[in-house]
Amino acid sequence: MKSSLPKVVHSIAGLPMAQRVINTAQSLDQATMHIVVGHGADTVKNTLVGEDLRWYLQAEQLGTGHAVMQALPGLKDQTGITLILYGDVPLTKKETLAKLMSEVQDKDLVLLTLEMEDPTGYGRIVRASDNSVQAIVEHKDATSEQHQIKEINTGIMAVKTELLAQWLPNLSNDNVQKEYYLTDLVAMAVAEGKVVSATQPDFAWEVEGVNSRVQLAALERIYQQVQAESLLINGVTLRDPSRIDLRGDISCGKDVTIDVNVVLEGSVTIEDEVVIDSNCIIKNSVIRKGTHIKANSMIEESVVGENCDIGPFARLRPGTVLASKAKIGNFVETKKTSIGEGSKVNHLSYVGDANVGSGVNIGAGTITCNYDGVNKFKTEIEDDVFIGSNTCLVAPVKVGKGSTTGAGSIITKEVNEGELAVARSRQKNISTWNRPVKNK
Amino acid sequence: MKSSLPKVVHSIAGLPMAQRVINTAQSLDQATMHIVVGHGADTVKNTLVGEDLRWYLQAEQLGTGHAVMQALPGLKDQTGITLILYGDVPLTKKETLAKLMSEVQDKDLVLLTLEMEDPTGYGRIVRASDNSVQAIVEHKDATSEQHQIKEINTGIMAVKTELLAQWLPNLSNDNVQKEYYLTDLVAMAVAEGKVVSATQPDFAWEVEGVNSRVQLAALERIYQQVQAESLLINGVTLRDPSRIDLRGDISCGKDVTIDVNVVLEGSVTIEDEVVIDSNCIIKNSVIRKGTHIKANSMIEESVVGENCDIGPFARLRPGTVLASKAKIGNFVETKKTSIGEGSKVNHLSYVGDANVGSGVNIGAGTITCNYDGVNKFKTEIEDDVFIGSNTCLVAPVKVGKGSTTGAGSIITKEVNEGELAVARSRQKNISTWNRPVKNK
Amino acid sequence: MKSSLPKVVHSIAGLPMAQRVINTAQSLDQATMHIVVGHGADTVKNTLVGEDLRWYLQAEQLGTGHAVMQALPGLKDQTGITLILYGDVPLTKKETLAKLMSEVQDKDLVLLTLEMEDPTGYGRIVRASDNSVQAIVEHKDATSEQHQIKEINTGIMAVKTELLAQWLPNLSNDNVQKEYYLTDLVAMAVAEGKVVSATQPDFAWEVEGVNSRVQLAALERIYQQVQAESLLINGVTLRDPSRIDLRGDISCGKDVTIDVNVVLEGSVTIEDEVVIDSNCIIKNSVIRKGTHIKANSMIEESVVGENCDIGPFARLRPGTVLASKAKIGNFVETKKTSIGEGSKVNHLSYVGDANVGSGVNIGAGTITCNYDGVNKFKTEIEDDVFIGSNTCLVAPVKVGKGSTTGAGSIITKEVNEGELAVARSRQKNISTWNRPVKNK
Repeated sequence: MKSSLPKVVHSIAGLPMAQRVINTAQSLDQATMHIVVGHGADTVKNTLVGEDLRWYLQAEQLGTGHAVMQALPGLKDQTGITLILYGDVPLTKKETLAKLMSEVQDKDLVLLTLEMEDPTGYGRIVRASDNSVQAIVEHKDATSEQHQIKEINTGIMAVKTELLAQWLPNLSNDNVQKEYYLTDLVAMAVAEGKVVSATQPDFAWEVEGVNSRVQLAALERIYQQVQAESLLINGVTLRDPSRIDLRGDISCGKDVTIDVNVVLEGSVTIEDEVVIDSNCIIKNSVIRKGTHIKANSMIEESVVGENCDIGPFARLRPGTVLASKAKIGNFVETKKTSIGEGSKVNHLSYVGDANVGSGVNIGAGTITCNYDGVNKFKTEIEDDVFIGSNTCLVAPVKVGKGSTTGAGSIITKEVNEGELAVARSRQKNISTWNRPVKNK
Repeated sequence: MKSSLPKVVHSIAGLPMAQRVINTAQSLDQATMHIVVGHGADTVKNTLVGEDLRWYLQAEQLGTGHAVMQALPGLKDQTGITLILYGDVPLTKKETLAKLMSEVQDKDLVLLTLEMEDPTGYGRIVRASDNSVQAIVEHKDATSEQHQIKEINTGIMAVKTELLAQWLPNLSNDNVQKEYYLTDLVAMAVAEGKVVSATQPDFAWEVEGVNSRVQLAALERIYQQVQAESLLINGVTLRDPSRIDLRGDISCGKDVTIDVNVVLEGSVTIEDEVVIDSNCIIKNSVIRKGTHIKANSMIEESVVGENCDIGPFARLRPGTVLASKAKIGNFVETKKTSIGEGSKVNHLSYVGDANVGSGVNIGAGTITCNYDGVNKFKTEIEDDVFIGSNTCLVAPVKVGKGSTTGAGSIITKEVNEGELAVARSRQKNISTWNRPVKNK
Repeated sequence: MKSSLPKVVHSIAGLPMAQRVINTAQSLDQATMHIVVGHGADTVKNTLVGEDLRWYLQAEQLGTGHAVMQALPGLKDQTGITLILYGDVPLTKKETLAKLMSEVQDKDLVLLTLEMEDPTGYGRIVRASDNSVQAIVEHKDATSEQHQIKEINTGIMAVKTELLAQWLPNLSNDNVQKEYYLTDLVAMAVAEGKVVSATQPDFAWEVEGVNSRVQLAALERIYQQVQAESLLINGVTLRDPSRIDLRGDISCGKDVTIDVNVVLEGSVTIEDEVVIDSNCIIKNSVIRKGTHIKANSMIEESVVGENCDIGPFARLRPGTVLASKAKIGNFVETKKTSIGEGSKVNHLSYVGDANVGSGVNIGAGTITCNYDGVNKFKTEIEDDVFIGSNTCLVAPVKVGKGSTTGAGSIITKEVNEGELAVARSRQKNISTWNRPVKNK
């Protein structure tokens, strides 16, 4: 990866690879996760989260079998099934793991295998006449007949924990690389007359591993395609399925339309009939029914009510909560602010740390001066207020119901209900004035 | 489609699918359109527009023949040709329809057929030794020899109206599905010794139908590719033909350059030597010769003169008309505004409902306060005016030729020719002041 | 090309095609470039740059041999090697040219050839039993046996200059087209018993020529893919390798992450651990270690220090220099401005022609009024200044260390160290005021 970060914390679709493996496994079953870490162990531990994670250090890298051996103290004296997964094989589906878990119930060891058009270089699955797995033969050791086998080993397996705990200490590193291989478990199982079988994932990308950024990018693209197709199937219109990025848990209602080059991150809920125009970026937010997010808008940790009209070029920062029919226009930034029904902030404004009522019109260039250099203060704008253009609202300040501020005013004191507040100088026209001349 | 909308009003390249069918047909010939609608009839009727559209309701969905039967009252006693098209087959080219119309003149029934590499599932075209069409055989009824036929029926056909009106009432639903099939017309024609022939479209995508959003998105992409290639052939440079979206009638001059991720919608005219940088969105506008639209600009229902310099991050809203060499810079919004030759609005401004002369410089942060909460008013800025930064122009207001406004002024009264208008307070420096301290 | 510009000045990845040829050749060896121009000679000469370029006009287009003949006055009496390249074959790699140059040392003429799956239409390379090149046979003149040859001539060659100068005058135009062909040199060489050999490029795209905008766009895409893969291999994470545009000399450190739809132009240096979010455009700039460029930012001819936080929607114009930990927020424009360590310009501001110290906070809506219509002036803001929101700084003006300006102030005079400067009017609340009513 040419990286100072451990490979498994590189992310795919917004989540570290190994986190995807943990999440998928834990979505299947709330079992204990035994995680073996080697290179960059501290970074990996600090990055990954999950219920009941147990950590084991593999100080030397002596093979896959050696890695699993590190977890032996946590496995022995346990019953049940151990599922062996890889932090750099991020996209195995829950359904595939469930198949492994189900299949192993009346077997002893189940491998996840894959049919490949060109299996060159991979370990081949040799099956007995009863179709049970007899051996895994490495490419270099395979006979020319075995080279014809297209079923290969992915490394992922489910095994009865008792057997695993019993077999692991017997793995040998008597080979050229002096490594302990997990694949040797198959020979042990067969030698003991245990039943070894294999099951397959629905898609080849589920078992693709990542060893370079080229592979990481390729797998990211495959996964984005898979997710986009899933949105289409569920009734979302995408103008270009190859130009949408979904990096989290995205929930979309019916008749949602998403234009090109949109990025959705984290937990995003998009209700029915929402329209999202091109180049929008939405992160950890809720967009309610019928709202139109116009092009080039960015929304983060916000709730946008029904039938709102957002953007273009709007930026809703964390803590923005819009009631229905609110309108946020171009070059407007909001932050930690609630805005009432039908209220409008149409142009070139910064509204932060404010509560804005319903039916309010905030003129172009309005700024809530919420920060004095050390503290932040709140601005209260009640229902039906009209804030004139280029008004500065020096917080803490309250603008009462139905009141008005004159364009260009600096409002530092409370404005009472229905009042007009003005803070500006009288205009003087100077007719004797001469324009400056060009400096030499 | 998993949609609450009828399928045929889902859009492709910016236009409802069925509207594309109507437009193509009417571009060929201003004949009456007889439109049979079923599911969501009202929505379809309210969405589609065209000359002389006649509507027929198919209350039950009893097959393609049954659908056309609904239009029988409008067809009988008519002469000429009936072209049978489908609202969910949106991209058939005018040239292909013209071929059908031309071919049917000395025949009785002409089918639009397609050669497919894998015709599995489709009705095969059985030809006689004289190459005339003898029958359409459904896949399930085909002999193994007929399964080898790669020519399939698309459903689109041209037929002499007299014959159609005579045949339709004789269609039978004596089949498993109890439906009336249009394809049975072929057997009727052959039985009566009429001449049935077939013609083919230039491209397979012309006859692709849409039954899901996956197919809708795929067809959208094919069509965008076709349109992009057409621009390239006509002398437009595209930095990435797979990252441009053309949704309307786009006319481009010579030596136009369009960068990545641009969207053009509606009626857009782009004259010679225009350069459009990445991420721009242009809708129903005219961009005159030599103008440069910089990245992230949005232009709607506007006319941009020759050699203008727009953006980046400019937003021209409807009714913006720029004379030549005008400059609209970053974070600037214009609306219902004309701007004269060589005038500049370079930064962070809102100019709405204004007439701006030539040679004007509008400083950063300028706002036309055009709205008092109930009414909108005009701002007049004459030639050679210099508007200082952060000026509020409280409309209605006129700023006379060659005059100047001081930075930060709120201009409420007319400024006469050559005058300097200032409305600001004197600066006081307070040396005894202490900064606020952190609240606990 | 359907263009008023000569083909070879059309650009690929940001550089005129012929300029790429010159640059590659000159990166190999600082030899004299003899450039033969025909159509649009003046435009070509005015566009292309390089060391020691010598120009020759080919007034009539009489074939490739005729073109090289024009340079004969510059070649004769010279020793060494002549490399014959084409202005419309832009992407030949330096390594490939080096192979030609190396191979020709102990030969007389070396052709660059290519193996093609479908060589239809191309001149075939006929080899002798000793593998030396015997002839180039045009497709139309080839025997059916020769049609099987998959090795074709690309036109690029290296030849001993003495021989070239001796052979060129003997080229004949005794053919149907009445043109002089360079390929005839092979026959001359073979006739004289000279050794002709051939070498191949690593990639087919290295010898692809451009004859239309379709081909130009296709080659652009191939080249972008090549460059993206090179970034991936060198340790850059790309979210989508097919949605990044690299148009210049891009240098990336370790663990750089670049999101979708980013454009990098000119000379761009990106240091370790920089994160660039989607839709950013960076041109001729340096981004130092650990900086985060948020979405939709544009940076041109600027230097961004370490651990800065830029955007979203920031625009850094030429001459912006940021010290470490500076923050430029949304809808902010900077130009010819230095900003000190940890200083912030968070919202909706224009800062131009300014020197800003460290620890400064510039409030929302601040504008440096640097232009009086004819001259530009500087703004000096010293360390630890707090500029209140919507402040106008009318340059030339200095704001002293640790001083403060009140929100909405127009600062025209120097503010001394530690002072508070205010220029605003007292707020008046008018309770008797009535809102305007709707005009009829």
